[in-house]
Amino acid sequence: MIRILVTGGTFDKRYDELRGALSFKDTHVGEMLRLGRSRVEVAIETLMMIDSLDMTEADRARIVARCGDAPEPRILITHGTDTMVETARVLASGVPDKTIVLTGAMVPYAFGSSDGLFNLGSALSFVQVLPPGVSIAMNGRCFPWNRVRKNKDLGHFEEIPA
Amino acid sequence: MIRILVTGGTFDKRYDELRGALSFKDTHVGEMLRLGRSRVEVAIETLMMIDSLDMTEADRARIVARCGDAPEPRILITHGTDTMVETARVLASGVPDKTIVLTGAMVPYAFGSSDGLFNLGSALSFVQVLPPGVSIAMNGRCFPWNRVRKNKDLGHFEEIPA
Amino acid sequence: MIRILVTGGTFDKRYDELRGALSFKDTHVGEMLRLGRSRVEVAIETLMMIDSLDMTEADRARIVARCGDAPEPRILITHGTDTMVETARVLASGVPDKTIVLTGAMVPYAFGSSDGLFNLGSALSFVQVLPPGVSIAMNGRCFPWNRVRKNKDLGHFEEIPA
Amino acid sequence: MIRILVTGGTFDKRYDELRGALSFKDTHVGEMLRLGRSRVEVAIETLMMIDSLDMTEADRARIVARCGDAPEPRILITHGTDTMVETARVLASGVPDKTIVLTGAMVPYAFGSSDGLFNLGSALSFVQVLPPGVSIAMNGRCFPWNRVRKNKDLGHFEEIPA
Repeated sequence: MIRILVTGGTFDKRYDELRGALSFKDTHVGEMLRLGRSRVEVAIETLMMIDSLDMTEADRARIVARCGDAPEPRILITHGTDTMVETARVLASGVPDKTIVLTGAMVPYAFGSSDGLFNLGSALSFVQVLPPGVSIAMNGRCFPWNRVRKNKDLGHFEEIPA
Repeated sequence: MIRILVTGGTFDKRYDELRGALSFKDTHVGEMLRLGRSRVEVAIETLMMIDSLDMTEADRARIVARCGDAPEPRILITHGTDTMVETARVLASGVPDKTIVLTGAMVPYAFGSSDGLFNLGSALSFVQVLPPGVSIAMNGRCFPWNRVRKNKDLGHFEEIPA
Repeated sequence: MIRILVTGGTFDKRYDELRGALSFKDTHVGEMLRLGRSRVEVAIETLMMIDSLDMTEADRARIVARCGDAPEPRILITHGTDTMVETARVLASGVPDKTIVLTGAMVPYAFGSSDGLFNLGSALSFVQVLPPGVSIAMNGRCFPWNRVRKNKDLGHFEEIPA
Repeated sequence: MIRILVTGGTFDKRYDELRGALSFKDTHVGEMLRLGRSRVEVAIETLMMIDSLDMTEADRARIVARCGDAPEPRILITHGTDTMVETARVLASGVPDKTIVLTGAMVPYAFGSSDGLFNLGSALSFVQVLPPGVSIAMNGRCFPWNRVRKNKDLGHFEEIPA
């Protein structure tokens, strides 16, 4: 059983047509797993629905606590890409004994041209086979938490040399 | 570097509007990797574009030969789901020393409700981290070649008990 | 009130993933009108769900009878493109006093690259404002029933000079 | 020949993945007409690309001037929904002798769940057949400029009783 913790980010943004703006409502993860015809046993839990630029240390502490408390040894976290590395860092010291993979999207799943479905398939696969440790699954790759940064000019994740 | 061998299957079927039927043209894999914003180094090669129900032993032998000859030690193969297990079987004896992952789709990528993009992200992740051997990546999971079958009534892949 | 009579055609084809083939199930018209946020009062009725190449004269007679019997003076018919002109012809003599517009699609709505939604918006608009008579709404235009043919080589409808 | 004047609005908003926000770039109208397999002769011109809440009287005056100067007697204008009625009003007095139809979208075309393609098909049809005058094509209907308002609570356009 894999636990999927939803925290928000571009991955789950929607278009609010009455306000003409982007907003959060329910997560799309369940519908995406159905679209992918996934038969992996998962427990999906929405912890929060925020832009990761708005995450506080208290929010990150809640994520760490929930990862530690959850019964599952393998956890996938959907998260905004802007501060994904920060959350990965606190998880690495706070939850050292589980396989934790964070992923997100550069374009909301609600859009036709989203990387969300690809990233979800990718992260769900990595989390099933990697040993304990915290990593980030973006752009088709898996990066150890301490060897990755988001290149904000190019909008992708890249490896930091050892 | 990962080699991606395209062989056809539902994954790459298109709708031919002049004939009103499904058909094959070029693969969608490149465009799907761009959509997923994949930054994995890949060499995409179209070996054939056929329904796997139409595959002959000669076709499968070509796939085996190409996998053996390719310089890459990790190979992802897109393939029709109907005889994916058969091709996996001949690959297991013909190419024992590479990491080979086969994937496909139940619904053509050209359709809005396709599992193709999810499966591609999934398979591309498994092929990067698994040890040598042949497996099938479908429904979010990875199955050893000799422990899987396609359940044609339910339209999904399932594990055969040891 | 506009009556929408559904008869099938490429417009409503779906992909049957268990059989790996195109098939008919329920119409998509209701869901398409919701997507278009249509506020036009309509009565949607599925008369048949067939490829228009398989239509018999009995099928066309049923369409004519239903158009005549329906209480509404304005009727939109979704129909396969291959014999849309034939049905339009029998309607022109059988139901001379109503505004009837036929439309369809070159690519199934279930596909991402479909003209279906555009054609539905187009036809629904023409049927609201045209005087009694039978026409075909395809390719953004409205053609009188006796001045149009389907160009099967190019896959579009064109005007026959007077 | 129909002139299509593009002024922006939700219809043409895109998702800017580097900034994580909605923005304008080029119009989608040409690509939408290709998707609809439209064979209507059109001249597409981008006049401006702004949210209609940001439109000034100078902007509206430019739209009026261009409509008057354009050689075509039939003009379709894509426009934000929030102040579409205001622009329609100034057009009615400024350009009394042409068939002008304004349309827009509640959800950006770039999103999968957009009404944009339906509205474009609808408006393009109305503009071909209506007599001179200014109207708004939204929600599948066509409203005279002085008999319509946007219901901002419900997000749709409705008729104002005479």
